Amino acid sequence: MSAGQTLLLTAGEPAGIGPDLCLNLADEDVVIVGDPRVLMERAEQLSLAVPVDIIDAGAPGHHEPGRLRVIPFPFPGRVEAGKLDPDNAKTLLDGLRFAAGACLDGRFHGLVTAPLQKSVINDAGIPFSGHTEFLAEVTAAGMPVMVLVADSLRVALATTHLPLADVPAAITETRLKQVLTVLDRDLRQRFGIKQPAIVVCGLNPHAGEGGHLGTEDETVIRPVVDELRTAGMNLRGPLPADTAFTPSAGHKDAVLAMYHDQGLPVLKYAGFGNAVNVTLGLPIVRTSVDHGTALDIAGTGKADVGSLRAAVRLARDLA
Amino acid sequence: MSAGQTLLLTAGEPAGIGPDLCLNLADEDVVIVGDPRVLMERAEQLSLAVPVDIIDAGAPGHHEPGRLRVIPFPFPGRVEAGKLDPDNAKTLLDGLRFAAGACLDGRFHGLVTAPLQKSVINDAGIPFSGHTEFLAEVTAAGMPVMVLVADSLRVALATTHLPLADVPAAITETRLKQVLTVLDRDLRQRFGIKQPAIVVCGLNPHAGEGGHLGTEDETVIRPVVDELRTAGMNLRGPLPADTAFTPSAGHKDAVLAMYHDQGLPVLKYAGFGNAVNVTLGLPIVRTSVDHGTALDIAGTGKADVGSLRAAVRLARDLA
Repeated sequence: MSAGQTLLLTAGEPAGIGPDLCLNLADEDVVIVGDPRVLMERAEQLSLAVPVDIIDAGAPGHHEPGRLRVIPFPFPGRVEAGKLDPDNAKTLLDGLRFAAGACLDGRFHGLVTAPLQKSVINDAGIPFSGHTEFLAEVTAAGMPVMVLVADSLRVALATTHLPLADVPAAITETRLKQVLTVLDRDLRQRFGIKQPAIVVCGLNPHAGEGGHLGTEDETVIRPVVDELRTAGMNLRGPLPADTAFTPSAGHKDAVLAMYHDQGLPVLKYAGFGNAVNVTLGLPIVRTSVDHGTALDIAGTGKADVGSLRAAVRLARDLA
Repeated sequence: MSAGQTLLLTAGEPAGIGPDLCLNLADEDVVIVGDPRVLMERAEQLSLAVPVDIIDAGAPGHHEPGRLRVIPFPFPGRVEAGKLDPDNAKTLLDGLRFAAGACLDGRFHGLVTAPLQKSVINDAGIPFSGHTEFLAEVTAAGMPVMVLVADSLRVALATTHLPLADVPAAITETRLKQVLTVLDRDLRQRFGIKQPAIVVCGLNPHAGEGGHLGTEDETVIRPVVDELRTAGMNLRGPLPADTAFTPSAGHKDAVLAMYHDQGLPVLKYAGFGNAVNVTLGLPIVRTSVDHGTALDIAGTGKADVGSLRAAVRLARDLA
């Protein structure tokens, strides 16, 4: 039986708002990867009448609006909203690995991930630096590229979760070439943009102001931009980051920021609550929310499903 | 004769759009510091019928809408739109020094500055790192604090024009205390906010995520925030920069970003074309535009006076 346009949705950290959000997506054609018992208990806690059907990974069946289909990965540890338990970490990653595989072999059309808690996985003694890196590893991808999308604004990152002091050394010609190549290719292939216009930020304020405020803009970034432009990409830059996102920078399909806090404050400000994280450079479609596990509001009914719903819809568009 | 609410406006780099913008502000009660000949020639070039009256610094007279009053600082070098001449640099700084003094002694109520070109001043052999630093020096101010304002969003910077690689070492407890003290005081005294709510960004992505992504957030920033909060300031932080600007961070009168590209991309995106730069920590009111000299459009009539007009109005509010 074909899964049609069915997407897999990993429920994420069970002590966080992931299960709450999944329960609010029973109207979408998704199959949850998670613990059915946790979903049922959370539904009761939230007084939500959402029946949970346990299904077989090979036979997802059809979506019946209002019901949740779940491929079961039951947690061995305690599950309580707001309380982390490292005993659940391995099962959570098993589910994620399964989900990636089931998208890779074509059984499902894309993967949407609810937030997980990096620290509790590390506390369990498992080295783990994030969804993106994990998925890149299990799908044997070369260079995953994190892109945040809010309405028509797309922001890609040349580096992601690094201390600020480590950023300048991480901006190398090799990395920039790989990131821009993936970004350009996936904007064409996944987003269907014929000749993607990409604005590249400088590393330093004012893009270095001709070397007065740092040299990497001219010695590292500009040569790569020039080379790839000559090779046919539609690139502008390096531009000062404080003009790159404004209308004065002209039409752009994406802005490449050099680091996390150069790009994401704008994106989150522009698309608050509806931003979606997309991982490019993977052999599968993968989107996720733009927020964390919000342990403090898990099980309270206060979690906003906006970003996860947007992530599901974008995954469907891309798939 | 009193200058009433009259402001001084330095016309900035004569080869840039400064003179063009001044000619569009003949409806405001400002006195220009600049070269009358340049303004007249630019008016002719732009087909603007704006009479230019040369006045004495001690007797600015009254504002007659439609006419520009100018305190003359004639340039010795060549002046042509788009063509920089280092021979004019000294005169430009003389005008700026005069303007600061005339505000300091109470003859005028505030200073608004059109953009200048740092590089041509340096090319003239004069060490110069920016308006803000120059004004801090000539007014004997301790720690100037750069704040950008766009509508209700105010973004202050803990560091300004530094290469990114130099930022982490510049974020010290001493600097943060000085900057927050100036920011809190001037939000009260100049902006009339009784108990200013200030959100402080972390230095690293996710404000260091408990030390996983850098340590300065916990070892440098948090102790200062805690200490000043205990002393009575209304501070929150360190917060991740990508949530600090959003509604989820709650009401705030200002956000303190740790560096240029953490704060200004959001501000410029939010207030494009109408953002105003305010220097706090000076003994005078000083505002300026949020853009550069735009040499390429000087003399063409394409310059947008929005930011300079907003700067004039904010200076009047603050004065």
